[in-house]
Amino acid sequence: MTQSDITIEDLSKVGQADAEYLVSLIRTIPGFPKEGIKFRDFMPVLADAKALGILMTALEETLPIPADSFDAVAGLEARGFLFGPALAARLGKGFIAIRKAGKLPPETIGEEYDLEYGTEKVEIESDCVQGGKRVLIVDDLIATGGTAKAAMDLIQAGGGQVVGFSFVMGLTGLDGLDKLGGLPTATLVSMPA
Amino acid sequence: MTQSDITIEDLSKVGQADAEYLVSLIRTIPGFPKEGIKFRDFMPVLADAKALGILMTALEETLPIPADSFDAVAGLEARGFLFGPALAARLGKGFIAIRKAGKLPPETIGEEYDLEYGTEKVEIESDCVQGGKRVLIVDDLIATGGTAKAAMDLIQAGGGQVVGFSFVMGLTGLDGLDKLGGLPTATLVSMPA
Repeated sequence: MTQSDITIEDLSKVGQADAEYLVSLIRTIPGFPKEGIKFRDFMPVLADAKALGILMTALEETLPIPADSFDAVAGLEARGFLFGPALAARLGKGFIAIRKAGKLPPETIGEEYDLEYGTEKVEIESDCVQGGKRVLIVDDLIATGGTAKAAMDLIQAGGGQVVGFSFVMGLTGLDGLDKLGGLPTATLVSMPA
Repeated sequence: MTQSDITIEDLSKVGQADAEYLVSLIRTIPGFPKEGIKFRDFMPVLADAKALGILMTALEETLPIPADSFDAVAGLEARGFLFGPALAARLGKGFIAIRKAGKLPPETIGEEYDLEYGTEKVEIESDCVQGGKRVLIVDDLIATGGTAKAAMDLIQAGGGQVVGFSFVMGLTGLDGLDKLGGLPTATLVSMPA
């Protein structure tokens, strides 16, 4: 189980030893969830007390914009929920949950986006970012950028303002970051799709 | 939107003013997701920086067992993910993700349980609690206790040991806590089902 195809990006800010320790716990599973996909599993990172601490510190220390230039952290169901509220609480911000359609009670606003097959829809509570709330979006992975773009459009449709993105992992060669309107981003580690 | 049917339980440990502030942000939505159900929405608690801070402090200060008597925090997809990793990181523990079937890569172990209609299945990675790891389970809500019981059985099937439960909300009159083998529990607030 070589980690040689994982590149340390912004995670380098926590120091080489801690960065390498965290990366050593990312598990690569070829052929999941289907043939041809290399799944990157960071559950072993979360399950390890030391690595979880490094991860939370890293998210805080690699913010793509100063902490005083946003009001809230938003995260996407389900894996964005693993980091978002923890980061928000560390920073003294609120957390905005972006959920799959039908999970939040009314009133909500939604945004549809295309997947490889079919469409997906995400929602927020309609009053949660009103009045120009400045939002940092957090997610576990940026691949083609479709989900992150939908999250951005949704926050903006709700009257908020997206000011940056933090990703734990980024897949190279898919140009996902190009879909995010030129906004500042941080990516802890990257790897080929 | 009265909050008069919400009772402050272990949340009282953070002090009356903070407890009341948090409770004032829980939203009650009658008839969601279906007729006859009163949905309790704590997304506005998370979205508020002050209330999120109180919530995280409360989870830490109301642990049902001493922090040195468990090794990891486990949480259930999706709403348990909102609190579990944050609490684990604050305590210097690891976090075990209990996911819906099919989301985790192999190898996994699973546990089926009954819902009102049909069955649900949850899974963990098969090596994540091996060797008797002592686990505190965190979830947003205890109702009939079926989900919490399934999580407990799953951790034990994986070779771990469940030593307690922390819930944000508990529904009274459903005897959910009685299904948890007499283990120590904490519940921040309660309300009628």
